[in-house]
Amino acid sequence: MKRTIYIANKPLDEAKRLWRQALIENGFFAQSPVESVKVDDCLGRLTAAPVYALTSSPSYNAAAMDGIAVHFEDLAGASDTAPVRLQKGRYQPVNTGNALPPGFNAVVMIEDVHQLSETEVELAMPATPWQHVRTIGEDIVATELILPEGHRIRPIDQGAMLAAGVTEIMVKRNPKAVVIPTGGELIQPGEPAKPGLIVEFNSRILAGSLREWGADAHRANPVADDPQSLRQVILAATRENDIVILNAGASAGTKDFTAMVLADLGRIMVHGVAIKPGKPVILAIVNNTPVIGLPGYPVSALLTLRLFVREMIAGFLGMEDPAPRIIEATMSRPLHSSMGVDQFVRVTLGNVGGTLMATPSGKGAGAVMSLVRADGILTIPAGSEGVGAGEKVAIELVRPKVEVDSTLVFIGSHDNILDLIANRLHRKRPIIRISSAHVGSMGGIMAIRRNEAHLAGCHLLDEETGEYNISFIKRFLPALPLRLINLCYRQQGLIVQKNNPKNIKSFADISENGLLFINRQAGAGTRLLTDKILRETGIAPDRIRGYAHEEYTHMSVAAAVASGAVDTGMGILAAAKALDLDFIPVAEERYDLIIPEQFIGDPKMMALLELMESNEAFHQEILALGGYDLRDCGKIMYRQ
Amino acid sequence: MKRTIYIANKPLDEAKRLWRQALIENGFFAQSPVESVKVDDCLGRLTAAPVYALTSSPSYNAAAMDGIAVHFEDLAGASDTAPVRLQKGRYQPVNTGNALPPGFNAVVMIEDVHQLSETEVELAMPATPWQHVRTIGEDIVATELILPEGHRIRPIDQGAMLAAGVTEIMVKRNPKAVVIPTGGELIQPGEPAKPGLIVEFNSRILAGSLREWGADAHRANPVADDPQSLRQVILAATRENDIVILNAGASAGTKDFTAMVLADLGRIMVHGVAIKPGKPVILAIVNNTPVIGLPGYPVSALLTLRLFVREMIAGFLGMEDPAPRIIEATMSRPLHSSMGVDQFVRVTLGNVGGTLMATPSGKGAGAVMSLVRADGILTIPAGSEGVGAGEKVAIELVRPKVEVDSTLVFIGSHDNILDLIANRLHRKRPIIRISSAHVGSMGGIMAIRRNEAHLAGCHLLDEETGEYNISFIKRFLPALPLRLINLCYRQQGLIVQKNNPKNIKSFADISENGLLFINRQAGAGTRLLTDKILRETGIAPDRIRGYAHEEYTHMSVAAAVASGAVDTGMGILAAAKALDLDFIPVAEERYDLIIPEQFIGDPKMMALLELMESNEAFHQEILALGGYDLRDCGKIMYRQ
Repeated sequence: MKRTIYIANKPLDEAKRLWRQALIENGFFAQSPVESVKVDDCLGRLTAAPVYALTSSPSYNAAAMDGIAVHFEDLAGASDTAPVRLQKGRYQPVNTGNALPPGFNAVVMIEDVHQLSETEVELAMPATPWQHVRTIGEDIVATELILPEGHRIRPIDQGAMLAAGVTEIMVKRNPKAVVIPTGGELIQPGEPAKPGLIVEFNSRILAGSLREWGADAHRANPVADDPQSLRQVILAATRENDIVILNAGASAGTKDFTAMVLADLGRIMVHGVAIKPGKPVILAIVNNTPVIGLPGYPVSALLTLRLFVREMIAGFLGMEDPAPRIIEATMSRPLHSSMGVDQFVRVTLGNVGGTLMATPSGKGAGAVMSLVRADGILTIPAGSEGVGAGEKVAIELVRPKVEVDSTLVFIGSHDNILDLIANRLHRKRPIIRISSAHVGSMGGIMAIRRNEAHLAGCHLLDEETGEYNISFIKRFLPALPLRLINLCYRQQGLIVQKNNPKNIKSFADISENGLLFINRQAGAGTRLLTDKILRETGIAPDRIRGYAHEEYTHMSVAAAVASGAVDTGMGILAAAKALDLDFIPVAEERYDLIIPEQFIGDPKMMALLELMESNEAFHQEILALGGYDLRDCGKIMYRQ
Repeated sequence: MKRTIYIANKPLDEAKRLWRQALIENGFFAQSPVESVKVDDCLGRLTAAPVYALTSSPSYNAAAMDGIAVHFEDLAGASDTAPVRLQKGRYQPVNTGNALPPGFNAVVMIEDVHQLSETEVELAMPATPWQHVRTIGEDIVATELILPEGHRIRPIDQGAMLAAGVTEIMVKRNPKAVVIPTGGELIQPGEPAKPGLIVEFNSRILAGSLREWGADAHRANPVADDPQSLRQVILAATRENDIVILNAGASAGTKDFTAMVLADLGRIMVHGVAIKPGKPVILAIVNNTPVIGLPGYPVSALLTLRLFVREMIAGFLGMEDPAPRIIEATMSRPLHSSMGVDQFVRVTLGNVGGTLMATPSGKGAGAVMSLVRADGILTIPAGSEGVGAGEKVAIELVRPKVEVDSTLVFIGSHDNILDLIANRLHRKRPIIRISSAHVGSMGGIMAIRRNEAHLAGCHLLDEETGEYNISFIKRFLPALPLRLINLCYRQQGLIVQKNNPKNIKSFADISENGLLFINRQAGAGTRLLTDKILRETGIAPDRIRGYAHEEYTHMSVAAAVASGAVDTGMGILAAAKALDLDFIPVAEERYDLIIPEQFIGDPKMMALLELMESNEAFHQEILALGGYDLRDCGKIMYRQ
């Protein structure tokens, strides 16, 4: 079988230019299809033509107040001292909105009417012509422009059109788009999972995003990766849709027939763009219809969809692509990027002491959670080798700025309690979010030092004093006013497979039996604990297989054990319990939060501290995880 | 029949406090109803509980690249000079996403594989353990928090949940709301109009707005204004809904039974708030259910809905009311306000030379077009008597700021061509809008002088020179670099009823026969023309009935004639033609645009100038209106 592994590396600008040209040549933007809809059903649609008033509003002279209709001439000279009396007939009661009776030319409001009897009133003020009368067309004059072409219709616009006698209008038809998942390995959500099978969720992300951008998008059933099926499905899709999205089959695997089939059915304009992620994207025209082959990884697929398809939808509708919301932020850590490749990095943002800090929200094209957590997208252009820590960068926001400003930025050692805190704070005040980067205890201290975080989680044992955290603070944060507040005491130990099949009891068992270990990164409190134990027990690190393979969180260590990739790793009981693994206790350690004094008064922080000090349900929820002791939770352990 | 004309005048803060307290006492915010939905159907909903991962993603060790699975140990020491050969069995081809075959522990990407034969490969680099392998849980670890409670679900969140094995979740149930129009005068859109009948469009505006704020809102059939029907409908509505909106019947007309019925069925917490518009609003509790009686005018109804109901929906869903987008602007003209009343003023905004200028978008509680045009809402608090021209004010935006910044601000004399320009510019570049305030030619010149507009429309005849506009510019804008560019020549004349039943041929006929005239405001070019003709023909203004009644646009003059409220008024042929009226020509006049030099290079202005100079279809469209001559359209008439 031939493998199509030759994918070009076109610069993004060049790829966009070629694609736009192909779309223009195939009349994609010139179609401007329209459809007629009732005004009652047009909310959110775009007008396809200007809407002019058919009738005036009001369409008759109407009382603008509750009161009586009069002839203004009758009240000439009326005053407190010389009131005028009118008999029924020369006045007539009217309510707001009533037609002014013929011949009458003013309204006196009810508050100014002295009703003498059923048939007589007394009035103490003159009236002006047409006072308190809404004359024909006061609001809308027939033939007046109500809405221009290309206007997105709001509820108030519906009201105005109906008021102007317009009940049906022409709107732009949204482009029809279909998302076709490809690959025999796909299963539907809820179907039983097996190694090698993948839940088909990409099409939901892609179709949902297309809808948000204005397309009438639907998902097709997955198609097997064979040329004949692909041919049939693609041809049928181009007949019924304005935009066809294939996912995946864009890369160079043994079963990626997409490019072959597209080249056969139509013309491939671009295959391979110098972007990361998203390189293997295919842009093709089949049957005068754009067909986009997206890479298989969710992050790559969504980012390339944003890059190439969002502006197609806007153009189809005759709209300008909405300008991205760009803000300036400061990178919290360096990021390397390949020259010659436009790289797109998902970042979380946090406003720390007035500076907006940007931190990558996760790596890997498959990391869908990195997009869930992302506040923005950083583009590192092809001409750059990367950005340095502290460098100013432009970020495209994907979340409202107000949410970013309401984010507590946590950087430091990972603990499962952080998820519980995030959830409880969000529930209490939905705008509060916690963005947490798990870079270990020393990483947290350094982040505080660089003013990149509101708080850091830390469990660093000073072997000399036997005290946790304080000596490290004195050394690395000597001048900073701060509080060290205890979150918990917790069990650390060896996470092993269910029923401990390798019968691991200590590090000695690992080294003696050549078992595969997974380590935590340098600077992690758990790493210091591991190294201390190895030193104390006289085991050289190079006697531990896998010592060099580092993970960043307790949960990823536990996951590596659960997958069978490794035999054991150091972590907390909660992580072992979450994945139904066994746990060999090694030590209890103290886990504290470092909070600079300047952030203590922040309402977000106060909500957090209140939660720790006094929320009984929260404490019970933590204890239920197992391996925790909350005897000092919320207590100030040190202050400077 | 008793008329309930006693409406209180509660301060807004006090009314809000009472209402909130009543809602809390009746458990409105404590209900937090939830419902279960499939993840595929949950887009845009709010999570009712945290969502945790049920399975890990990937759920097996997966190839992260297309290539071959290997044992990393086999490649120890491999290099260009000492490549390693592997036989099938010690390697296995894998595509991205495939499960790593049992026993294998690394992947070499296809680009680095030298295929020697069907069964043998050569590799020139060592591999590290687990390279190009996505290990179990690399993206999502089972038990990990995917989404906190109270999170609004996006497409990417759906993808993450499905990736984590979650197919059904609990979401918050949106509050059910019903909008009940009341009044026997209501007809449905499309039904034949008659004096006294009103098209029922308010419920569309109100229900649409409630939906935008998160309610599950529907419209009920209109109810006649009689106590028995109202009783039944209100009682039934409170049993089936979380929020009941009545519109109208809140004021003091003879048929406003709403307050009476509500007092009988439940408890009225507030009737009458010191706000303008919206004063007669009723806030009541019936059957533990909030019932809000809104005033009948569309602007009053929508503004009171915003004031009292938007935050109810947010509270019901456990969300904070989204913070209004407040920006600072400068008032272009003074606005008076009553002490003791919170007044809400709809304004249009325009960025003129870096200053955001705010101008009221229309007056009158019935002016639905003032809301269609509005960019923001200005609140003049109860303690203030108004704001002065040039004063800084805080405006709540109701339209995206980017649209405000793309608005060409036109102030000056009205001409129907402006609608055509607005529409063509919007069609060409949908973000460009024209905000036009029709205050007459002198008003336009003054607005340019105060730097409040990008351009002004002007047709002021200097009687001494016989020249249009230039002498006024020299007098009032002496130092400002600007261009005077012709838009058109146009017919001015007397607009009279169809077939001219009063046989009007001149102003003399009006004064001699005591006919009713409608005038234009002081400073309008049409007013100057009127006054000039009266002077030339020796007719004293007090001989013209209605001379003191002023309208601001040609169309409103024509509408007054069409309604029969007046017999005639001065205006342009286009306005007469639009309403099928007759027209007695009086003079051709020149209509120019004044454009300060600093705005000539603005892309919005360039689009406008290009349209005037060279767009043939646009010219044809104008000529079709009648009464126009475009011989100088786009020509610079004067420059300084």
